[in-house]
Amino acid sequence: MHRVLLLPGDHIGPEIMAEARKVIDVLVAEFGFSVECETAHLGGCGVDAEGAPLPESTLRLAKASDAMLLGAVGGPEWDGIERELRPERGLLGIRAAMGLFANLRPAILFPELAAASSLRPEVVSDLNILIVRELTGGIYFGSPRGVEQRADGVREGFNTLRYDENEIRRIGEVAFAAAQRRGGQVCSVDKANVLESSELWREVMTDLASNYPDVTLSHMYVDNAAMQLVRAPKQFDVMVTGNLFGDILSDCAAMLTGSIGMLPSASLDEQGRGLYEPVHGSAPDISGQGVANPLATLLSLAMMLRHSLDEAALADHVEQAVRSVLQQGLRTADIAPQGTSAVGTRAMGDAVVEAL
Amino acid sequence: MHRVLLLPGDHIGPEIMAEARKVIDVLVAEFGFSVECETAHLGGCGVDAEGAPLPESTLRLAKASDAMLLGAVGGPEWDGIERELRPERGLLGIRAAMGLFANLRPAILFPELAAASSLRPEVVSDLNILIVRELTGGIYFGSPRGVEQRADGVREGFNTLRYDENEIRRIGEVAFAAAQRRGGQVCSVDKANVLESSELWREVMTDLASNYPDVTLSHMYVDNAAMQLVRAPKQFDVMVTGNLFGDILSDCAAMLTGSIGMLPSASLDEQGRGLYEPVHGSAPDISGQGVANPLATLLSLAMMLRHSLDEAALADHVEQAVRSVLQQGLRTADIAPQGTSAVGTRAMGDAVVEAL
Ligand SMILES: CC(C)[C@H](C(=O)O)[C@@H](O)C(=O)O
Ligand SMILES: CC(C)[C@H](C(=O)O)[C@@H](O)C(=O)O
Repeated sequence: MHRVLLLPGDHIGPEIMAEARKVIDVLVAEFGFSVECETAHLGGCGVDAEGAPLPESTLRLAKASDAMLLGAVGGPEWDGIERELRPERGLLGIRAAMGLFANLRPAILFPELAAASSLRPEVVSDLNILIVRELTGGIYFGSPRGVEQRADGVREGFNTLRYDENEIRRIGEVAFAAAQRRGGQVCSVDKANVLESSELWREVMTDLASNYPDVTLSHMYVDNAAMQLVRAPKQFDVMVTGNLFGDILSDCAAMLTGSIGMLPSASLDEQGRGLYEPVHGSAPDISGQGVANPLATLLSLAMMLRHSLDEAALADHVEQAVRSVLQQGLRTADIAPQGTSAVGTRAMGDAVVEAL
Repeated sequence: MHRVLLLPGDHIGPEIMAEARKVIDVLVAEFGFSVECETAHLGGCGVDAEGAPLPESTLRLAKASDAMLLGAVGGPEWDGIERELRPERGLLGIRAAMGLFANLRPAILFPELAAASSLRPEVVSDLNILIVRELTGGIYFGSPRGVEQRADGVREGFNTLRYDENEIRRIGEVAFAAAQRRGGQVCSVDKANVLESSELWREVMTDLASNYPDVTLSHMYVDNAAMQLVRAPKQFDVMVTGNLFGDILSDCAAMLTGSIGMLPSASLDEQGRGLYEPVHGSAPDISGQGVANPLATLLSLAMMLRHSLDEAALADHVEQAVRSVLQQGLRTADIAPQGTSAVGTRAMGDAVVEAL
């Protein structure tokens, strides 16, 4: 019996989570999937209902679960509140509290959706990159940090980028192991020509490579990596990088596909327990309209089945079902070519259920 | 009588600088341009000739000049040497020593070269973005920094991101003033949902906007900015950001045009004195072959004429001449469509001289 925690979150979060729920129900009813689901607050809904973006009750349920599925958090209604209560604090908080250091972000172009990319088809066809981002260290969590008034009366803002050898090694191991199961290539991205923390990063990655003779390691500066993603993204197999560079590059890579509404992600701890979520955000501009694309959430569910619940066959079923609705020509508004008609969130979820 | 310091630098640097020299000679001989040029070492050539990437003699000449034109620095032969002697230290050193805090990087698509972009033509046609990057602060120069062994024996690398109000305000002023002369829009890029230094950045930019009622300010998180550059780059007019984000985003934006061999840049101090350089690097892979594209250097020269030497008419002439050789169909290898023939560095320079 797997224990799964559902975290619908804010805005379109609950809408797309409802479709994941339907798919889970079918897996239980027809494929022998044995699961117990709980639901909890994370993000703005946590602030509204329990006074915190990561309520204690949520953290308790998270610790008791085998895996978590998140919709999305955030929205303008929480923009004005104090820093510690903002929705994204809930996300950063659960990553830290649960030790979810390894963020896996595939950037895959679905052949059916090639037209959605802003890049020329030949540049992105068959694109399949895995970005491995360190998620609980670096400048996101380093101290000292803050805004202070100096002796001369001028205010100064500061943050600290910090990585130790162990943090670098464990994310490197995730990347090398992933490359062994894929194209055998790891590109480590840093800014070692300027930052000492990147020098250590590069050194540790280089040392680590000797444990993986079947994987080829290369290094690239982050500015060049951003260029190469735009110029010739298919040169990459696995990219591994720190928290901030990974934030930027993974969004850039996701957008190359043109279909950010299709991309899942996983954030894993050292035991492989994870938080799974679509790469897209909470989309306040379309929330409540029933038009959000639920497929990234369903593909996140598939990733969860595969990586945390050891249910590869079920994961295959879900991924097949998603592929089949795309082949049938079903499109939500975000991936529908201009001038064509689109289906809503529920109709898309129902079609996947049907295809299962 | 203008005083200009030429810094050819490494690899293709001297090759492209030779073409700039030719153009300067024509401006002197035929357009009444009054200039005294000195030449000095920066980068690897400084290490080899004088034992430092930024020799004292170079810095002295830089301080006595009205403007500087740089080819490019760096190459694999200096990879192994100690950090303080690496070519890029020369570049970082001259930026700091000369107070070149404002880096202007236009990303312009030349209509004749639209086919070189990896993006669909309609996404990038007429692209014209100006990225204003802070160049002497932030995590590039912040301390404490280093790699140290902790009490537990584990090594740790660390860097400090630091911006004070004055640094943020002065780069903001450059961006707002530029927007007044362009499309009237500034997008300030930060990571204020995670970094306190970005919170201060956002606050100062917001305050500053009230001095520029004719300019519209928006804010964007850096991850979203990277996505939007790929998705719909024409939404931007002027983007302003810190040193590291600017490094990444300006290279990404430059690559959108597909013609990084065409893009100039300026790094200015508070008096408008500046260092001008092509955006591309020293390209060790093609150095010595006479195939490098000199046009970005010639366009950097034009920027220098306009921004530091108050010679707008001459700048126009040079830019016109570059446009005219493109219209004639001349292409160096980097911008020649596959299967077509290309001209070399000298032939391209000669054609510009001819067009003048
Ligand atoms: C919401 C924000 C704090 C978060 C991050 O920067 O990590 C988001 O951009 C992401 O990538 O999951
Ligand atoms: C060479 C390197 C130190 C430099 C930088 O990061 O600033 C370069 O990438 C640039 O953008 O001019």
